[in-house]
Amino acid sequence: MTEDKIILGIDPGTTVMGYGLIHVKGKKVELINFGILQLSKIEHHPDKLKRIYDRVAQLIKEYHPDELAIEAPFFGKNVQSMLKLGRAQGVAIAAALACSLPFEEYTPKRIKQAIVGNGNASKEQVAGMLQKLLNFSEMPKYLDATDGLAVAVCHHFSKGVGEHNKTAVNSWKQFVVKNPDRKV
Amino acid sequence: MTEDKIILGIDPGTTVMGYGLIHVKGKKVELINFGILQLSKIEHHPDKLKRIYDRVAQLIKEYHPDELAIEAPFFGKNVQSMLKLGRAQGVAIAAALACSLPFEEYTPKRIKQAIVGNGNASKEQVAGMLQKLLNFSEMPKYLDATDGLAVAVCHHFSKGVGEHNKTAVNSWKQFVVKNPDRKV
Repeated sequence: MTEDKIILGIDPGTTVMGYGLIHVKGKKVELINFGILQLSKIEHHPDKLKRIYDRVAQLIKEYHPDELAIEAPFFGKNVQSMLKLGRAQGVAIAAALACSLPFEEYTPKRIKQAIVGNGNASKEQVAGMLQKLLNFSEMPKYLDATDGLAVAVCHHFSKGVGEHNKTAVNSWKQFVVKNPDRKV
Repeated sequence: MTEDKIILGIDPGTTVMGYGLIHVKGKKVELINFGILQLSKIEHHPDKLKRIYDRVAQLIKEYHPDELAIEAPFFGKNVQSMLKLGRAQGVAIAAALACSLPFEEYTPKRIKQAIVGNGNASKEQVAGMLQKLLNFSEMPKYLDATDGLAVAVCHHFSKGVGEHNKTAVNSWKQFVVKNPDRKV
């Protein structure tokens, strides 16, 4: 059976939210879209939450993804910012729950490990690897967009790994080794 | 114009969620329902979020509240627990956003101030005052239920206060003074 599914990746933040959509068709992975939602100019936190919810709901309505993958940092500087980040994650997750979309979360380290093969890779390294993999010509102004894309690709690479197994075993390097005929 | 609205109050937690519904009709406040959602036995955090979302969505569908009031602590012991609490708040808020329900948040201190007239009141004092105000005969087993009710009543007392004004000016005591004919 050939796998055919659309994955929505979200990197939720309280200043910028990044998102990316990929189409997985057998061994092929195609870019559908990626972008950001600018939240820094929205003053009140409740209004930011509404904006995040609406955008994620709209992306789901427009692209009909089969699964949601979300970047979920577990550590932060202070409780106040983590509460806000948790809420941003919560409303994005809820938009998926509202459509009975399954979701999976990945730590930033695991995402970098999956894409670059190094959990401490820079945003630029992740973006560069995604550009090679998905053949987009221009780098986005905000790398939050590639971060959103990265979690979608990480989710694709991680399929088959137990749902709550947080140690990355798949990586872009392994993917290349396993798929020497993959056009990049 | 006589005010006539239903308020849903939610005290979101990651072990127990409390909720309460009141009907405000002019000067009268009536209890509709209150209860809890037990989450302690659900192992995985994503499953808890789904349960919270589903219950809040179901309460909205069943009782058609006009507004949502949510208890939102801003301080906690560690970033890890605040992230989880933020997510629980986020999915509850999103269930309201999905129905275009306006929501307002209140700190625990402000809720206690509004109900008892003392921001450091105990859960038992809050529950006792609510029992007098809303005439329910039996105390619930879990006081999280009265906590959910408390935020709904706090929201009712706070009407007219600016949306983002976080200093409590109304209280149960003031309500009694202003409404000597109120039957309790």
